[in-house]
Amino acid sequence: MKQLSIGIDIGGTNTKIGLVDAQGNMYGESVLSTRQYPDFDQYIEELYISIQTLIKNADMQIELVGVGIGAPNANYYNGTIENAANLVWRGVVPVVEKMKRFFPNIPVIITNDANAAAIGEMIYGGARGMKDFIVITLGTGLGSGFVANGKLIYGHDSFAGELGHVIVNRTSAGRACGCGRKGCLETYVSATGIKRTVFKLLADHLEESEFRDISFNDLTAEMITKAALNGDPLAIEAFEYTGMLLGQALADAVTITSPEAIFLFGGLAKAGKYLFEPTKKYMEMHMLANFRNKVKLLPSGIDGKNAAILGASALVWESIGNREKTQNAECD
Amino acid sequence: MKQLSIGIDIGGTNTKIGLVDAQGNMYGESVLSTRQYPDFDQYIEELYISIQTLIKNADMQIELVGVGIGAPNANYYNGTIENAANLVWRGVVPVVEKMKRFFPNIPVIITNDANAAAIGEMIYGGARGMKDFIVITLGTGLGSGFVANGKLIYGHDSFAGELGHVIVNRTSAGRACGCGRKGCLETYVSATGIKRTVFKLLADHLEESEFRDISFNDLTAEMITKAALNGDPLAIEAFEYTGMLLGQALADAVTITSPEAIFLFGGLAKAGKYLFEPTKKYMEMHMLANFRNKVKLLPSGIDGKNAAILGASALVWESIGNREKTQNAECD
Repeated sequence: MKQLSIGIDIGGTNTKIGLVDAQGNMYGESVLSTRQYPDFDQYIEELYISIQTLIKNADMQIELVGVGIGAPNANYYNGTIENAANLVWRGVVPVVEKMKRFFPNIPVIITNDANAAAIGEMIYGGARGMKDFIVITLGTGLGSGFVANGKLIYGHDSFAGELGHVIVNRTSAGRACGCGRKGCLETYVSATGIKRTVFKLLADHLEESEFRDISFNDLTAEMITKAALNGDPLAIEAFEYTGMLLGQALADAVTITSPEAIFLFGGLAKAGKYLFEPTKKYMEMHMLANFRNKVKLLPSGIDGKNAAILGASALVWESIGNREKTQNAECD
Repeated sequence: MKQLSIGIDIGGTNTKIGLVDAQGNMYGESVLSTRQYPDFDQYIEELYISIQTLIKNADMQIELVGVGIGAPNANYYNGTIENAANLVWRGVVPVVEKMKRFFPNIPVIITNDANAAAIGEMIYGGARGMKDFIVITLGTGLGSGFVANGKLIYGHDSFAGELGHVIVNRTSAGRACGCGRKGCLETYVSATGIKRTVFKLLADHLEESEFRDISFNDLTAEMITKAALNGDPLAIEAFEYTGMLLGQALADAVTITSPEAIFLFGGLAKAGKYLFEPTKKYMEMHMLANFRNKVKLLPSGIDGKNAAILGASALVWESIGNREKTQNAECD
């Protein structure tokens, strides 16, 4: 009987589902359209059918140990998704309660994508054995998961870890953020942020650049990475600027939680040295002396095609691990 | 048999010692000169004698349950004080190891002053029952203790919680900090910081002020508070500026740990509304929408003459509480 957890990654377009063992091996995966089910009850039923099919197709004796879900705007404490702009369901959606009807006897856990990435890093990835670390997810925005004393910091209301919304530019020139404020870190450091930086550089400089023939909407972070690889000075400067702001913000974050390592996860982290080198340089340059040259800056150890499913499934193993640790601790 | 813990506050000039019960009541206190004992072994012997005298004078049946120590530059994990500029002992001092010779059978715990204040707040003060909160200590510098998931964040190397050293001014005009960098929060927000602000205002403005007759070395934060109470516009402006920078920094800190409350502790917090009102105003003004009007800004519940002893003694009750919680949890 193989113990497996179900990892579910709910995105605006698709929901990805996978069966995962305690070592992070996948025993089947499938995809369900999220957008196709504006009726949430119907969505949950379809999700349940997809899971049943996955289990059947795995064709082995399975003991399901839990369901882990990663989703935008997820509230870990309440088991809900709350006012997620990019999902078809409005208001507060009771995900865990509805899933529990189909899985009454095993844990069902939900958290946001960046928190799931952090737990995934702790269970399967580069943070195994670490008690204090930070995961930064660089996608459309900048997400983060902070782990201290071996536990994810959810905070009082489950919405901790919003490093993308610390203010890094308090002047009137601070970039407008989707949150309604100005100068948030994610307006500079994210796939969208670096696009904005490229356009700022096109405005400020005179040099020719391959980007002068591309519209904002056509430009992608991958194109900027590719241009940097080809030696485009403007692309390299954009990464330098991105790394400077990220490095400064990380130096500040280190003073608060003193992590052993910081992991960079997501599309922009694929730029490798173009992002890591300036980030590391400016992080150390701005670091309080106690912490200088002590904090590792690492690529994620789970970052790949199935990272979101892995992160979600890790929620289950983490919760089982905590239960066992508590049971075993000093019980004699 | 009364269960009591020993709280020890090691300062540059004096060491304060108290016997404290689980409710924060004092059963005797005494003072030992720190400076008089550059020989650390001799200091520890004198400290032990002071404790024995305290216990004798208490004149009751006492069960000592542990020793808690608050000290600058204390390393919680190693039980040491490391390179404390204001103490007579150089290098790394093995405080816990030496104390353990006199108290081999009870826990001996050391941490820095701000962390002790945070644990004190949790055990005896306004944070009782809270799992996520921040304590800011406003003395010569700015210290902080972050609690998440009911546990103090020590971080990988025990030096977490240095909010005084996040950078709030990255321009060349950033104030020089004792840490060797520029623009750290504590150069603006602390007893010394507000003095610097008063002198900046005296330089920038023309108005008459009682501060024009006072030297920098003669000026104290208490004098600025008193002047604000008397309606001095320059003093009120200095508090407004201090509150603005503290409020902005707290709004950023909230995005990371999402606390239920933030406690202000120490001399400058005694300024009451002159500090709290601008801090609250700017904190809310700069807060990410999720957190707006949710985080309490409160005066410390243990702040007083014995706060440092209470904080140190609370380390013991906290450690006993954690042990009991682990023992009782799901052991059946």
